[in-house]
Amino acid sequence: MIKAPVASIAIVKYTESDYLQTQDLLAVEEPMEIRLQFGEGDLRKEIPISVTMRTPGNDFELALGFLFTEGIITKIADVSQISYCNSAPENGQNIIKVSLNDNLEIDLQKLQRNFYTSSSCGVCGKASIDAIKQHCNRIEIQGLRVDPNLLLSLPDKLASVQTVFKHTGGIHASALFDWEGNLLIHREDVGRHNALDKLIGYLISNIQIKTEASILLLSGRASFELVQKAAMARIPIIAAVGAPSSLAVETAKNFGIQLFGFLRENRFNKYA
Amino acid sequence: MIKAPVASIAIVKYTESDYLQTQDLLAVEEPMEIRLQFGEGDLRKEIPISVTMRTPGNDFELALGFLFTEGIITKIADVSQISYCNSAPENGQNIIKVSLNDNLEIDLQKLQRNFYTSSSCGVCGKASIDAIKQHCNRIEIQGLRVDPNLLLSLPDKLASVQTVFKHTGGIHASALFDWEGNLLIHREDVGRHNALDKLIGYLISNIQIKTEASILLLSGRASFELVQKAAMARIPIIAAVGAPSSLAVETAKNFGIQLFGFLRENRFNKYA
Repeated sequence: MIKAPVASIAIVKYTESDYLQTQDLLAVEEPMEIRLQFGEGDLRKEIPISVTMRTPGNDFELALGFLFTEGIITKIADVSQISYCNSAPENGQNIIKVSLNDNLEIDLQKLQRNFYTSSSCGVCGKASIDAIKQHCNRIEIQGLRVDPNLLLSLPDKLASVQTVFKHTGGIHASALFDWEGNLLIHREDVGRHNALDKLIGYLISNIQIKTEASILLLSGRASFELVQKAAMARIPIIAAVGAPSSLAVETAKNFGIQLFGFLRENRFNKYA
Repeated sequence: MIKAPVASIAIVKYTESDYLQTQDLLAVEEPMEIRLQFGEGDLRKEIPISVTMRTPGNDFELALGFLFTEGIITKIADVSQISYCNSAPENGQNIIKVSLNDNLEIDLQKLQRNFYTSSSCGVCGKASIDAIKQHCNRIEIQGLRVDPNLLLSLPDKLASVQTVFKHTGGIHASALFDWEGNLLIHREDVGRHNALDKLIGYLISNIQIKTEASILLLSGRASFELVQKAAMARIPIIAAVGAPSSLAVETAKNFGIQLFGFLRENRFNKYA
């Protein structure tokens, strides 16, 4: 049985001096562990590389998107198999096993670290950006201009399909649009990085979507981590409903990504 | 020179068909590494245990709060010294060195893992809660009732002192109030877990604040991680402006914490 993304619980609702016993729907949050399997025969290894708190659903995409945006795999063909853990029946869906192709070189040390720690020249914003540069190039698209009205129309289009948010009010979303403003795909999760990893996991499994001709909409704020993931997926335009951080702007500039924030009814800011 | 929590950058503001070149203030996001030092003489060891993206400011509190809520230290006296890294002058403020007392037993293996992975019985919400139980007991306060009007007054009190949010609109806050609704302390950060770690880092350094007689206000959603940290700090009441997750509610119930969400002008929900 697939785990549900939404749970119903008994609550007390207080409104203008009145208490009411009722039911409410909440976004489910459960840990998910990713285990990598590689090598053959006696040399076969299985190592856990991450645990993230996520909303169940699109779990394989989440695992693939995470591995891709962390630079562990570079294409879907690097993965030979992906499955839930069958030996743990009760919570097997919280463990994802990913078998990597034998010809893929894995830097075991690197697996223990993440992007912004992989720099040798110190820990700072610039080093964090430099670490991404080892994995991806600047996106060069000449004369790219987005119609402001198209940009401002995106949040409503996302809202109209956001099922879990509608019920719980407590979830992040990432959505991909083409340059005509058509919604291509969206994903939701209690963790904003998970929502984007799920979306990118779908993209690398479905190469017919051209990310270089797309716009990424983020339901909340734009952090360094989210811009880093978009850079890995080669998405040239990011529009966030909330504010970006300083490092998110710097990262976007470094990778030729246009970054918009504070999308409201009739206004927005362009940061990069 | 102390790193600033806010940065000014040039942006283009779009409002009702008009473009305007202007300056905007953003919340700064920079990596911070925590290194533990322990042992003596030839056996002296230094190991990096975490890198988090944070807004500079209250960095020592952030390190102490993180170590405390992860169960690595249990009191301020476990720490003999805390300092920036002097040998990396340019970005030394992004590295915090924490010397632990020699009589503190450190489980090196545990340092590589975090709470919700430390369970041997599988990866699931229940195991995550059980893992916290190894570190803290249920908070038992009989007949604890919060006045709804007091609760609803808290967000405005926080807003009136939130300096970085006022300027950037892009930051999370955690605030502690006493049971009369007086603001005791608040902290801000681009990461919601960092804002709470900074607050708890302050609390363990200032034992005159009785957390068992306090209310924690969260500016956004309530996740498992935030409730876990509040349980470690023995805070019996959490009020969130946003929605809680299913596991946040379950965790609060397990530790005797009252959890309120969706604090709005004249209404809120009680989840636990």
